[in-house]
Order: sequence, then C-alpha cells, then structure tokens
Amino acid sequence: MKVVSFVRNGKSSYGVVSGDGIVDVGARLGGKYADLVAVLKAGALAEVEATAKGVTADMKLDGTTLLPVVPNPGKIVCVGVNYDEHRREMGREPPGQPTIFVRWPESQVAHNQPLLKPAESDKLDYEAELAVIIGKHGYKVSEADAFGIIAGYSCYNDGSVRDWQTHTSQFTPGKNFVATGGFGPWMVTADEIPDPQTLDIESRLNGQVMQKSNTELMTFNIRKIIKYVTAFIPLEAGDVIATGTPGGVGTKRNPPVYMKDGDIIEIEIAKVGLLRNPVKNA
Amino acid sequence: MKVVSFVRNGKSSYGVVSGDGIVDVGARLGGKYADLVAVLKAGALAEVEATAKGVTADMKLDGTTLLPVVPNPGKIVCVGVNYDEHRREMGREPPGQPTIFVRWPESQVAHNQPLLKPAESDKLDYEAELAVIIGKHGYKVSEADAFGIIAGYSCYNDGSVRDWQTHTSQFTPGKNFVATGGFGPWMVTADEIPDPQTLDIESRLNGQVMQKSNTELMTFNIRKIIKYVTAFIPLEAGDVIATGTPGGVGTKRNPPVYMKDGDIIEIEIAKVGLLRNPVKNA
Repeated sequence: MKVVSFVRNGKSSYGVVSGDGIVDVGARLGGKYADLVAVLKAGALAEVEATAKGVTADMKLDGTTLLPVVPNPGKIVCVGVNYDEHRREMGREPPGQPTIFVRWPESQVAHNQPLLKPAESDKLDYEAELAVIIGKHGYKVSEADAFGIIAGYSCYNDGSVRDWQTHTSQFTPGKNFVATGGFGPWMVTADEIPDPQTLDIESRLNGQVMQKSNTELMTFNIRKIIKYVTAFIPLEAGDVIATGTPGGVGTKRNPPVYMKDGDIIEIEIAKVGLLRNPVKNA
Repeated sequence: MKVVSFVRNGKSSYGVVSGDGIVDVGARLGGKYADLVAVLKAGALAEVEATAKGVTADMKLDGTTLLPVVPNPGKIVCVGVNYDEHRREMGREPPGQPTIFVRWPESQVAHNQPLLKPAESDKLDYEAELAVIIGKHGYKVSEADAFGIIAGYSCYNDGSVRDWQTHTSQFTPGKNFVATGGFGPWMVTADEIPDPQTLDIESRLNGQVMQKSNTELMTFNIRKIIKYVTAFIPLEAGDVIATGTPGGVGTKRNPPVYMKDGDIIEIEIAKVGLLRNPVKNA
C-alpha cells in the first residue's frame, strides 16, 4: 500500500494511492485519526487499507497538492556519511558509530513542491536517501527486532546548504534551511519491501544521473541505525530516519555542481518511488 | 510573572507561581489553551496573568510534580561552546558563527525530577545554561528585533554523555539520552529581565561550585543567536534556545568529574531561579 499526505479543499488529509488516483481516507477516518502520525500511533494502517479497499479514487494523484509524507514528524533522525564512497569524497574517517544529526520539519517539502535555494547561499546540494518511517514506539531495540517498528519507506532528498553546513563542526544550519529537504512522494508500507537493503538508489539533476548506488552499501544498515538511536532515545510512530546518501554529491564534483533556480532534482529508489522537485530561488 | 508546567490529579496543566503556591490557570483556561505552548501561540500570557491575579493558590509549589517548563517544544536549539572559557577548555577554535546542535524533548526532565545516568556510560556531565523561551513566530529576525520574540527565560542543564557526544563529529547522541537535560523550574517572563546579558550563572554539584560566570561573557549573545538561527529556519512560540555553558564542565577537570547516582546538581541564574535535580541510575 502507498500512503500519501495531501491538501484537499484547503484541508490537510491522508489517503491511499489507487491506480492514478487517491482515495481520501482522512475524509472518512479523520474524526478518529487527524493525520498519518495519528494513524501510525493508533496502529491503524490496516484500517486505512480496509477503508480504501474497493473505493473509487476521490481525485487524481496528478494535480493533487501533496504534503511531506509525514508532515509533522516528532523527530527527523539523519545519518551522515553512511555510504563509503560518500564518506571518502567528504574526506571523513571511517566512523565506529553512525553519525547522527537532525532536521526539523520546517525544512521539508513534498513531492513536486519547490526546493528553495536560500538567498544566503549559492551552495544548495542534493542527497538521495532512503527514508524509514517509524510505525510504533521503540526503545533499546535490538537489531533482530528493528524491522518490527518500521511502518514503511519513502524517498528523501536531504538537501544541504554546504557553506552553512561547515560554519562550525555541527551540520545543523546547513541541513535546516526552510524548504530544502524533499520527502515523498508516498510511504510504501513495509510489507511490500521485505528487504530494504537491496534497493537501487539514484539522483538525477535535470535528467543527468548524479548518484547511483544500492542500499546494500550503507555503512550502518537500518537494523544497526535503529539499535544505535534507540539506545539513547525512543523512536515513536511518525518519526523519520534519513539513512544517508551515496557518493556523487554536487559539492565534491570538479567543478562543483549546485542546484539553482529552474533545475529539476529527482530521487528514485527501486520499489519505493520517484521524488521530484523543481528548484526555485527563495 | 513566573509560569510553570505541572501535573495535577494526573493531568498536565500550567499556572502561575504566587508566593509559595501555584494558581492552576490550566484548570481555568485549559479549554482555550491546552498547554503553555498554546498560550504562547495565542499570545495569551496577559490573559494568564489576569486569570491568576488575586486568586488564592490552588496548591503548594513544594510537593507539586513539575513538568519541563515547555514540555513539548517544537524545537530545542542548543548553542555549543558559547563562552570563551568553555571553548578553550574543550580545545575548539574560536568560531565565526554559533555552533548549533539539537536536543529532542524526550531528553528533558523537570525541576526536582531525577536526571538519569544511562547504563551505557559513566560520563554524564552537567552544563549550566540560560534558556530562552520563544513567544512568537520569528523568521529573518534582526538583532534589533530579536528580544521582541522572547517570552521569557529559564534554567537549562544541557546534560551531556561525553563519550557518546564524541562518537562522531556530531553531538546528537551525547545530548539526547532520555532524561539527561534539566529544564526549569519556571519561565520568568521577559518583562522582568530587560537585560538577559548581565546574569550571574553557576552550577553546583553536591553544593560545590563547578561553573561560575555571567551571561555577558557569551561569545554570541542572544540577539546574535536569534538572528543567525532565524536566517535559516523560523523560531515558533514554545521553541527553546539553550544558550551555551561557561567553563568548568566535569569532563575537563583533572581528574574528570562525572555525575553519579545520589548526586545533586543545581543550576542557578540570577533573577531566573534555581534548577535542582537529583541524579539516579537509569
């Protein structure tokens, strides 16, 4: 099942993709579950699926204003330099533990919405990442149990303002400019992707392949990331993990390539989907 | 006015300190404003004050189970190495910009609640900090306008698990163990502290002074921090800024001093208050 968050008649909702349309489940279950996070917290994905089953789509997917898959995650946990090729191009030592930094929800945009190049920088870069969406509370989770707290997967473009990322040792500013992180188009539920560590992942800038890898090449796989993070803080339904990006980012090309007004950036992950964002000046 | 968040009869509420008691304003205005964040978002601090005025306290402050001043901040923005003495003791270069990292709300505890030393580490350290609580939306805020978005001030103990803080370049894990950050006891509204850059600040471990400084010694003052952060992301009502800690942290003492089960750690800031937490094993 593919679950989307969107705006319909000026109101936030969520639903299920059906062919080239969307069944507006929020219009039917919104009284019980205000948004996708509420659905996940209640463990109600099966009810969402049953509600949408056999129902004619309420509108076309094309032309619907999507929201970031989870518009309001409690936490967005990002893993840095988690593919060897990208780690080497960034000149960083092999880490003994996952590199964890944070995005805030205000930095996110949905599929088809513009990524905004800030006026403060000309160094907006792309980063193709597999997003893991957490389905239920997990604390001190073992590697063996890690998949049990996953609701599904999506594409993430962990857009990075490179000069602000390196103002100090901490990445926060460069990773949190408004509308620099793409998240979508939908969540594919975990049952459809039994092994998320075998997925081709790539980014394309104006149609040209910039990153091309496979999630099997993560330095710390999803099980290890979940074990490490939940050793210190619980993960909750609706939390998001951006699992890191492969080599090929723009800032390490010769000459460097940064995104600019008018560009189109795409992140495509096998079995998950295609996240596409135009780039505009803020 | 001193505003507190607390639990009464098993229910979260908020109120105003009156003498040695609390007026439970949430019991009176909870239908309009569910919590302190809702109060701030509505710009309703004056209504809270008017509601509490002349009312007999509902209970004693002593014996009330407090919550972190803002139990559910959208963002906790932390500033690292923001006093020269601490920066030098940590061996870091003078930064050109504020060092920004992130805490998540699950890492917070209230005044009098135990800070938890994780089983995973024996290196839990204290950091006395002035907390700035944001009162309204601010984006691209100038230094001149920065104080206009501040609702008030509190004490923060930016408790740090030092070995996990240095697993990689990013501080996130060491700053986000469950129940390692003290926040309280209350918010003193900004009208009572016209100049927050002249406040004596100290920490005491089991009564012994460990850090002693003044907020005038911040490398980046509050106006500069707000300008820098809102250049990339909006600050919203209820967001919290932990403005950094002075020299004297435990990890840089010879021999190092870490907090352990049975300790009492206190953060005191002139005109703001005294935050006191016992330390327990998780």
